[in-house]
Amino acid sequence: MTREPVTLDPGDTIGILGGGQLGRMLARAASRLGLKAHIYCQDRAEPAVDVAAAVTIAAFDDAMALDAFANSIRVVTYEFENVPAETVSALEPIIPVRPGPRALAVAQDRLTEKTFLNTIGVATTGFMPVDKPGDIAPALHELGAPAILKTRRLGYDGKGQARIKSAADGPSAWTVIGRAPAILEAFVPFTRELSVIVARGTDGTVKTYDVCENQHRDHILARTLAPARLAPESASRAKAMAQEIVSALDYVGVMGVELFETREGRFLVNEIAPRVHNSGHWTLDACLISQFEQHIRAVAGWPLGSAARHSDAVMLNLIGAEASAWREALAWPDTALHLYGKREQRRGRKMGHTTTLYPLGTLPDDLSSV
Amino acid sequence: MTREPVTLDPGDTIGILGGGQLGRMLARAASRLGLKAHIYCQDRAEPAVDVAAAVTIAAFDDAMALDAFANSIRVVTYEFENVPAETVSALEPIIPVRPGPRALAVAQDRLTEKTFLNTIGVATTGFMPVDKPGDIAPALHELGAPAILKTRRLGYDGKGQARIKSAADGPSAWTVIGRAPAILEAFVPFTRELSVIVARGTDGTVKTYDVCENQHRDHILARTLAPARLAPESASRAKAMAQEIVSALDYVGVMGVELFETREGRFLVNEIAPRVHNSGHWTLDACLISQFEQHIRAVAGWPLGSAARHSDAVMLNLIGAEASAWREALAWPDTALHLYGKREQRRGRKMGHTTTLYPLGTLPDDLSSV
Repeated sequence: MTREPVTLDPGDTIGILGGGQLGRMLARAASRLGLKAHIYCQDRAEPAVDVAAAVTIAAFDDAMALDAFANSIRVVTYEFENVPAETVSALEPIIPVRPGPRALAVAQDRLTEKTFLNTIGVATTGFMPVDKPGDIAPALHELGAPAILKTRRLGYDGKGQARIKSAADGPSAWTVIGRAPAILEAFVPFTRELSVIVARGTDGTVKTYDVCENQHRDHILARTLAPARLAPESASRAKAMAQEIVSALDYVGVMGVELFETREGRFLVNEIAPRVHNSGHWTLDACLISQFEQHIRAVAGWPLGSAARHSDAVMLNLIGAEASAWREALAWPDTALHLYGKREQRRGRKMGHTTTLYPLGTLPDDLSSV
Repeated sequence: MTREPVTLDPGDTIGILGGGQLGRMLARAASRLGLKAHIYCQDRAEPAVDVAAAVTIAAFDDAMALDAFANSIRVVTYEFENVPAETVSALEPIIPVRPGPRALAVAQDRLTEKTFLNTIGVATTGFMPVDKPGDIAPALHELGAPAILKTRRLGYDGKGQARIKSAADGPSAWTVIGRAPAILEAFVPFTRELSVIVARGTDGTVKTYDVCENQHRDHILARTLAPARLAPESASRAKAMAQEIVSALDYVGVMGVELFETREGRFLVNEIAPRVHNSGHWTLDACLISQFEQHIRAVAGWPLGSAARHSDAVMLNLIGAEASAWREALAWPDTALHLYGKREQRRGRKMGHTTTLYPLGTLPDDLSSV
C-alpha cells in the first residue's frame, strides 16, 4: 500500500507523542508556522502541555484514546524513540507516522541499529549480540577487553549499561543491565563525541546542521559546542554519514546522529535518535531555522529551510539543581536562558539550558571539558 | 501606596489581556523562560489561545471573570493599548499591571500623549485640540494647511483620520472621524518613518534595539528594515528619545516609539505604543533576545537581556491574501515564515510575516519603498 505524502495546510494539527521539553519546543515551532500541536502524554504536568493547542492525557496503550487522537490530527510525530510498537500500529492505519515505523524499529534496538548502519557502509564500534550470560565470554574474546554490555532496548543517559574488564565481570554485568537481551560493544578510546543534526523532507531534500561537539558528565550531555573544532574535510565526512543514514531509511523529520571521533580521526556512529536532539538545542538561537522548526516542516510535508548558522554557540544543559542558577543565567552576556517548566529538580533531570552566542568563527579555543 | 516590585519565579503565570498575534508571540516567549501565559480574550479562535497554558474567554468588563483571572496570575500585561480603564481598575488592586496605568492613559489619548512628550522635551508634530467642529478653522490657521484631523482615542492603522486641505474640509472631516474629540496635527513632510523598540525593567535598566525603518502601504506597516539606514549619531539621537520616554513614565516593559524623520534630519515622535510592536518582529530572528522575551522579562521583574542584533533583517508583513504565498515564502532563501493561525484572510488583516536575514552590515541599499 503506497500513500501520496500527506501535506498539511496552515491551521492543521500535528500530533506529538510525548510531553517533555522536546515536545514543548516542537509545539512552539508548530505555532510559529501557523500549525497546531496536539500533545499526547501521560501527565498533565508535563512541559509540553502549557503550549499545546490540544492535549490528550492517556496511556500509550489506550486504544480508544489513540483512535480519537489519530482522528483529530493530520500527521503524528514523537519526541522520544521508545514509542511502543503497538502505539504506532494503532495510529499508522489512520494517519502518517513521521518519522516512519522503520526508523523507530532501527533506533529502538541497538543490535538492529548497528547491523543496519554497517549494512549501508556506516562504521560503528565492533559489537556482538548477547542473548544470555554465556554469550558474554566468547563475545569478549572476539572484541577484546574492556567492552561495554548494553541492553538492546530502552537504554538512555547511561542507563542499561555495564563495563566489562574481564570475563569474570560477565555475571554481575548481566545483572546490572537487568538480564535483558543485549549487545557487547568494543570499547573505543575516542577522543571526542560529536553529533550531526540532519533533516529530511517528504521530497527527499536533506539539510544538515554543522557538526557539533558534545561534552558529557555522568553519561548526560552537559555542553555542546557549535561548530565542532574540526577540519572542513572531516566535518564534510561526518555530515555525509548522517545524510547517508536518513536517505537509506527514507526518513522524514530530524535525526540526531551521535559519533565518536577516534584517535586516528575516524568517525564511528554511536547511536541514532529518530527525533530532535538535545545536542541540537543551539540551533534555536544560532540558526534562523531551528531543528524544531525543521522537524515540523518535514513532518508537515513542507519544504525544509536553511540549516545555516549565523553565529557560533555554546549550549549548556541545566541539570537538576543547576537550574537554581536561572537568575544569574539571565544576566550572562550574550546568553539566552531556556527553562522547561518542570516543577521538581531531580538529580540528572534536564531542567533547562542556556545558549551563549559568539560571532561566526569566534568560538573560544579554551572550551575543553566541563 | 507603594508596593515592592513583584518578581516572578519560574513556573509562575503571567496574565495577558488580548489574544492576537502579539499575545501569541508573548505566550511563546513566556514558555521559553519557563513561565506560563494565561490569555484573557473574547473569542476562543484568537491566535494566542493555541499556545496559552490557561485561557479566559470573557468580555473586558466582566467583573467576575476579571477577578478570577487576577487571582490566578502573578502579574498582568496586555498586547493592545486600548485596554478599557475599567479593566485596569478591576485588576490593579489585586496584581501589578505592567506597563502601568499611566503609560496606558498617555498612549490612549493623542492629546495627552503629545502634551506629555512635549513636556519632557521630546519633539512631536505641532497639534491643537479639536473638541467641536468650530475648533478646526482656528487650529488650521495656527498650524497651517494641509493638516490631519485625528480622533484622540481608538485610532489605528489609519482609522479615525481625515486630511484637511482648507477650512472648507472641516465639516466633512469631522464626520469622517466620527464626531469625536480630536486633535488637528500639522502635516509633516517627513522623508522616512522610523521606530525604536525600547525595554525598561523594574530595576530601571533600559535596553534599546537598533532603530529600524518602516514602510507603510494603505496606512498599514508593510516592511521593516533593521537597521535603519542612518548615521550613527542620528541613530543614537533617536534611541535617546525613546529612552527618555520610558524613563519619564517609570515604564516597565517594551514600548514601540514611532518617529518621523524630517527633511532636515530632525526626529518627531508620531506615536508611542505601550506594548510589543509590529516593527519589532524582526528581533525574533535577528536578535538573541526578542522584543517578546524582553517584555516578558520586564513584566516578570527579571533582568533584561541584550538588545544586540546578530544579523541585519528585512521584515515583511503578510496582509490579507498575501498570506496565500506561505508555501513560496517557506522556500525563500535565508527567510523565516511566521503565521499567526488566523483562519480568515480579511482585507488589511495581518496574517503573518517573514524575516529575511543578512549578515551584519550587509543590508542591501536598494530597499526603497514597497
